[in-house]
Amino acid sequence: MLLSYLVLIAIGTLLLYLPISTYEGISFLDALFTATSAVSVTGHVVVDTYKTFTPFGKAVILLLIQIGGLGYMGFTTYFLILLRRKLSLKDRILLAESVNYPGLHGLVRFLKRIVPFVVGVELLGALLLLPFFLRHFDLPISLAMSIFHSVSAFNNAGFSILPDGLTPFRDSLWLNLAFSLLIILGGLGFYVIHELMLYQRKEIQRLSTHTKLVLVSTLLLIVGGFLVLLLDTIRWENYSLKEKLLIAFFHSVSSRTAGFSTVDLKSFSEGGLFFLVVLMFVGTGPGGTGGGIKITTAVVIILVVHSYLKGSGQVVVFGRRIAEDTIQRALTIFVLSFLYTTFATLILTHTEGAPLLPTLFETVSAFSSVGLSVGNPQGLSLCADWSPFGKVVIIITMLMGRMGIMSFMLALYGKGEESRIKPPEARLLL
Amino acid sequence: MLLSYLVLIAIGTLLLYLPISTYEGISFLDALFTATSAVSVTGHVVVDTYKTFTPFGKAVILLLIQIGGLGYMGFTTYFLILLRRKLSLKDRILLAESVNYPGLHGLVRFLKRIVPFVVGVELLGALLLLPFFLRHFDLPISLAMSIFHSVSAFNNAGFSILPDGLTPFRDSLWLNLAFSLLIILGGLGFYVIHELMLYQRKEIQRLSTHTKLVLVSTLLLIVGGFLVLLLDTIRWENYSLKEKLLIAFFHSVSSRTAGFSTVDLKSFSEGGLFFLVVLMFVGTGPGGTGGGIKITTAVVIILVVHSYLKGSGQVVVFGRRIAEDTIQRALTIFVLSFLYTTFATLILTHTEGAPLLPTLFETVSAFSSVGLSVGNPQGLSLCADWSPFGKVVIIITMLMGRMGIMSFMLALYGKGEESRIKPPEARLLL
Ligand SMILES: [K+]
Ligand SMILES: [K+]
Repeated sequence: MLLSYLVLIAIGTLLLYLPISTYEGISFLDALFTATSAVSVTGHVVVDTYKTFTPFGKAVILLLIQIGGLGYMGFTTYFLILLRRKLSLKDRILLAESVNYPGLHGLVRFLKRIVPFVVGVELLGALLLLPFFLRHFDLPISLAMSIFHSVSAFNNAGFSILPDGLTPFRDSLWLNLAFSLLIILGGLGFYVIHELMLYQRKEIQRLSTHTKLVLVSTLLLIVGGFLVLLLDTIRWENYSLKEKLLIAFFHSVSSRTAGFSTVDLKSFSEGGLFFLVVLMFVGTGPGGTGGGIKITTAVVIILVVHSYLKGSGQVVVFGRRIAEDTIQRALTIFVLSFLYTTFATLILTHTEGAPLLPTLFETVSAFSSVGLSVGNPQGLSLCADWSPFGKVVIIITMLMGRMGIMSFMLALYGKGEESRIKPPEARLLL
Repeated sequence: MLLSYLVLIAIGTLLLYLPISTYEGISFLDALFTATSAVSVTGHVVVDTYKTFTPFGKAVILLLIQIGGLGYMGFTTYFLILLRRKLSLKDRILLAESVNYPGLHGLVRFLKRIVPFVVGVELLGALLLLPFFLRHFDLPISLAMSIFHSVSAFNNAGFSILPDGLTPFRDSLWLNLAFSLLIILGGLGFYVIHELMLYQRKEIQRLSTHTKLVLVSTLLLIVGGFLVLLLDTIRWENYSLKEKLLIAFFHSVSSRTAGFSTVDLKSFSEGGLFFLVVLMFVGTGPGGTGGGIKITTAVVIILVVHSYLKGSGQVVVFGRRIAEDTIQRALTIFVLSFLYTTFATLILTHTEGAPLLPTLFETVSAFSSVGLSVGNPQGLSLCADWSPFGKVVIIITMLMGRMGIMSFMLALYGKGEESRIKPPEARLLL
């Protein structure tokens, strides 16, 4: 999987590096950064998307987002299926891993339904956005704006081709809700969406524990996030009450992975920004267009600790026991993510000379495919002003975050063998 | 155990609140804070120890440190043993838990050896420090200074009764080494010390995996910490090379729990301070006078992740397999510590209005019984300027950190029952 992503990023970089993609040229590093940011649906920007890229360049970014959001394998396999090519077992296993589908049963049916669904939602999203943009631009521009932002929102990419991003439109209820809807749908994960479709058509009788868990936690995180962020926005001057409510709601929805913003993030207090870091770290549902350690991982971890302290010996949610290997996997993902983000932040605070909070924010934002940033003075991501080394760290972090730190590390570790020798046990005090 | 600590802190608070303890009185909250800081051997200060407390008050603090450092149960039980009182099984279990001794076998012998050892090392430490203090004070003051600082260093308490702390003496090789020796010894944990004593007397043939692990990791952490901190200090102006080396070494040793400092911590860069946060979080060996998640917990966690990625199916260190329940416990401690410190920092950034780094620093410092602080303008801990609410959060954090977050949470949860019903298993995607 790592190799596929690297190839895709390489192609994207070369396309964006072509003179036809930019008005005034772009450095190779910035092209690499932008391609990685698009493929990983992160949305960190080191050059102004609106001003730098020609319509061709913008289309390339859009395509990279679309491929990255759906998952590289899912995208290519879909066309293989359309061409009626037979999938090998190896293809299926890679595909299942890539789109985060459990097992192989129903995989092709899943993909056949999901791809049209994605395209359908994105078209619907564009239709929702069109009347809004028509109030500000002519028809061709409005159409382009609608399609680009619908794809960018559903894929939780956070890229915008508006001259000043979404900030000027922060009081539009319509825009806030349309974006939020697309973001939330994309963040649920394709498996959840697929199950909801099956459920709605009565092809299945009940929702799985996984789907219930994702739906309930998403709701709780959005409401909880809204309330905590409101502590900040409610105190802001020069904003109407409607704006304060919308900003808190929108950032609660957007910060867990989409990365759109309707306000300069520096308006938030340190406490508010740190809370955004926590939301970003948690992320969305797995196997969707979002990132982070994933909602399910976060819930499993809290449940594990709770059950350990209760001494109950098993981890139960919605009356179901969570499998041992799921728990191990969740703990590993959590620990790896903690170690990686801490270590990367530690290095970047030393090399880039920015204070802790903005550096941590930038790193977690990259790791969780969010793309929010406290920003540099030109309104780009903070890392736009960083050294090439700092930018490369962010590039690696975005790639790792999108692949999943587990898959990324496993790709680096290579396939090990289970050891057959069982050494004597040691007692350690903790 | 929670109750014992609360009683001890209550007695300490009342003693420090007595008019005889202070020159000009002290608020009840500050007395409570100081008593908790001493019992938990943290060393956060909200009043100037040197100026505020009379010799009687200072003696109370010293006693609280001594009782807190050895562990409340260990201290009281030792006198029960001296009085030849028979220990009940319940006493033994509580005692073993309190001094972190594995099992009950050899517990009384352990305690009979450890207490004289502690007193011996502290006296030796005082003798080491005496010639140094004699160069600056007369004999009675020097004696008091030597004893207080030896106890404070060995118990990793970080309290100082010097007018300006250790800062004026940062270039004294003698002081740096004497303090470091006491700090490291106290941080190894009583079990390790006991085993080293047995080994040295040839009562045992080889060291346990636990002891080897603590010794090796302590060495690596000190050397690694020294090198990373040197990245900061080497760039400082107005310091001699000797000072730069000593400061980096001393803070590498001291930051993992002792909390003494020979320089204004604001001299460190954001990256350096964040690294100190990481060192503080890791802490020392378990069952000693130190805090943090403990060296062993940190090592187990890294080994677990490594073995999971390698797919080896078992966690091995020094040719020994780490027991399953040890791994579970380590992961729980780590996750709980992460959740608690993140949550507390989140609240404090909202209520106290300080930037993220100093707030995180203060919180982790309290949690890991360190007591280092970027400080307030009067040279006290940063939280000296915080609201009563903020101080109470730090008080709870210090207590929790010293008891161990696991014991603390278990005390709150109460004893649960292992569930016999086994619900069906759920598959979750992560
Ligand atoms: K994003
Ligand atoms: K301390």
